[in-house]
Amino acid sequence: MTKTISLPGFEDVLAAAGRVRGYVRETPVLTHDVIDAAAGARIFVKAECLQVTGSFKMRGATNRLAQLTAEQRKTGVVAFSSGNHAQGVARAARLMGMPAVIVMPADAPLVKIAGVKADGGEVVLFNRDTESREEISNRLATERSAVVVPSYDDPHIIAGQGTAGLEFARQMEAAGETLDALICCTGGGGLISGVALAFEKLSPATQIWTAEPEAHDDWARSLEAGTIQANAPGTRSICDAILTPQPGQLTFAIGKRLFAGGLRVSDDDVRGAVRLAFDRLRIVSEPGGAAALAAAVARLPEALKGKRVGVLVTGGNVDPADFAKIITHRS
Amino acid sequence: MTKTISLPGFEDVLAAAGRVRGYVRETPVLTHDVIDAAAGARIFVKAECLQVTGSFKMRGATNRLAQLTAEQRKTGVVAFSSGNHAQGVARAARLMGMPAVIVMPADAPLVKIAGVKADGGEVVLFNRDTESREEISNRLATERSAVVVPSYDDPHIIAGQGTAGLEFARQMEAAGETLDALICCTGGGGLISGVALAFEKLSPATQIWTAEPEAHDDWARSLEAGTIQANAPGTRSICDAILTPQPGQLTFAIGKRLFAGGLRVSDDDVRGAVRLAFDRLRIVSEPGGAAALAAAVARLPEALKGKRVGVLVTGGNVDPADFAKIITHRS
Repeated sequence: MTKTISLPGFEDVLAAAGRVRGYVRETPVLTHDVIDAAAGARIFVKAECLQVTGSFKMRGATNRLAQLTAEQRKTGVVAFSSGNHAQGVARAARLMGMPAVIVMPADAPLVKIAGVKADGGEVVLFNRDTESREEISNRLATERSAVVVPSYDDPHIIAGQGTAGLEFARQMEAAGETLDALICCTGGGGLISGVALAFEKLSPATQIWTAEPEAHDDWARSLEAGTIQANAPGTRSICDAILTPQPGQLTFAIGKRLFAGGLRVSDDDVRGAVRLAFDRLRIVSEPGGAAALAAAVARLPEALKGKRVGVLVTGGNVDPADFAKIITHRS
Repeated sequence: MTKTISLPGFEDVLAAAGRVRGYVRETPVLTHDVIDAAAGARIFVKAECLQVTGSFKMRGATNRLAQLTAEQRKTGVVAFSSGNHAQGVARAARLMGMPAVIVMPADAPLVKIAGVKADGGEVVLFNRDTESREEISNRLATERSAVVVPSYDDPHIIAGQGTAGLEFARQMEAAGETLDALICCTGGGGLISGVALAFEKLSPATQIWTAEPEAHDDWARSLEAGTIQANAPGTRSICDAILTPQPGQLTFAIGKRLFAGGLRVSDDDVRGAVRLAFDRLRIVSEPGGAAALAAAVARLPEALKGKRVGVLVTGGNVDPADFAKIITHRS
């Protein structure tokens, strides 16, 4: 069976920027000499953890929900997510006045579950190892005539997340700098593929690299193989936000064409990056959100040493006790 | 003995903005519904904790040092500070290629002492209760023919800090909002008086309020009395950054004319604000830096309920163990 896939392009990212205006904020680009020294390169951190709902996910959710018809808005949306997409969808739904049901793993960080509830989202928990979130979501969608909002493999979601790249490229241009490379963490790949579309047009010389947990390196292996590779089930990492089974169809189609390669980080690399972002940038990052910074600092390819490297810190939704443990542990 | 004092004005803030360009970054204005609900008002947080060196102090230091002559730069500068001014001066000195000696209290947060040293600043520690930092600084300045850079009572420092207000007023204008009030923490008052100069011109309807620890309420009492009032020696608060003995001559002269009044916060109010900024805005704030947010949330005057209130979160230089303790303590 062949499936026709419609890939988003730069124009879709531009159109998304118009739709998300007023719903999302421009996040700052931060730098620090100590981070540069640790990486052996000039590192520019776009702090999407400061985004509305604490992650970039608000961008894609807003772009998707803004395109629902008046009829669709009545019955609302269903989404499944470990937490950041959940919060983006719940917030966008509230602001646009439609109901939202969110299917979340029972072991999601409490802060993320609370975030969804605070925006009036209805939370349905599932067991990550024994139940299928897709099945639950589809059943709920059918029961309620609600629209399923995928977390990454959707052209509107990709285009919405791409607005972070549009901003980043324009901020670098305004600063008179051109990035030699950009590193972004990857779960399903919605953010990085949208960002890549923006950079392809605005900063075509910038290499795009994925970053992910070494035990969960589906993107690196997929890019190496040229075909989509999945993770073994049941693998764990502290990077809860990016533990997606495998690259998406749309996101991989974009990635195969536009990504330079994949970087792998350990949980300790990630803890170090969370500490560094706390110590030097004064931002709160969650483990998954700091994976790209971890890659820049601990795993930068030799060819990028001395270069200008952009990094997306993508989320900051972390339970206080977990964050406290990471920042007070000094190796 | 009368002392002639030359007060800075709006034009000095504008000129400072030209001098600090490239040395400081524009910091974002952040909002969150939960913060609004807690305060009973619409709260706009300017996150100066994300500023270079982790506090607004880089602004004033840069403006002051940029005006030294080539001759003066050879022998450099001396500053005394509990830590944030210290780091601003050390960084500006390094970037402009001049030596800096910093006199700091022996009980300053380690992170602040480390920050000064990382920028090549020479640190001289003193005992806050038994030694005079002014005497030590003046002696060092004489010995080395170095220029003393005051932390607040200096027209160039005030004008430099005022660039934060210039930015804030312009950001609010771009967002189509006018602040009814602005709350800023006060130690010596360098930041708030510079900010007040900017708002007087760009947003004259905005009331300017001080915020400080209740045991250290020199500004509130001075504004109430109409003359400068000092704190009792030896009072303590977790707000290390703003424990200045009394308002400055210049800053009080500006404040007397432009400030609406003073708000007092408890250490617990401040801890709550640090937690709120962590939970909702994903920024790292130090206790003193969160005093204005604490005032907005816990001590907002009735007349400001339902209004638009700007808050400066002024610094994020806090030791990890202290920060961990605050964010994991839930009352």
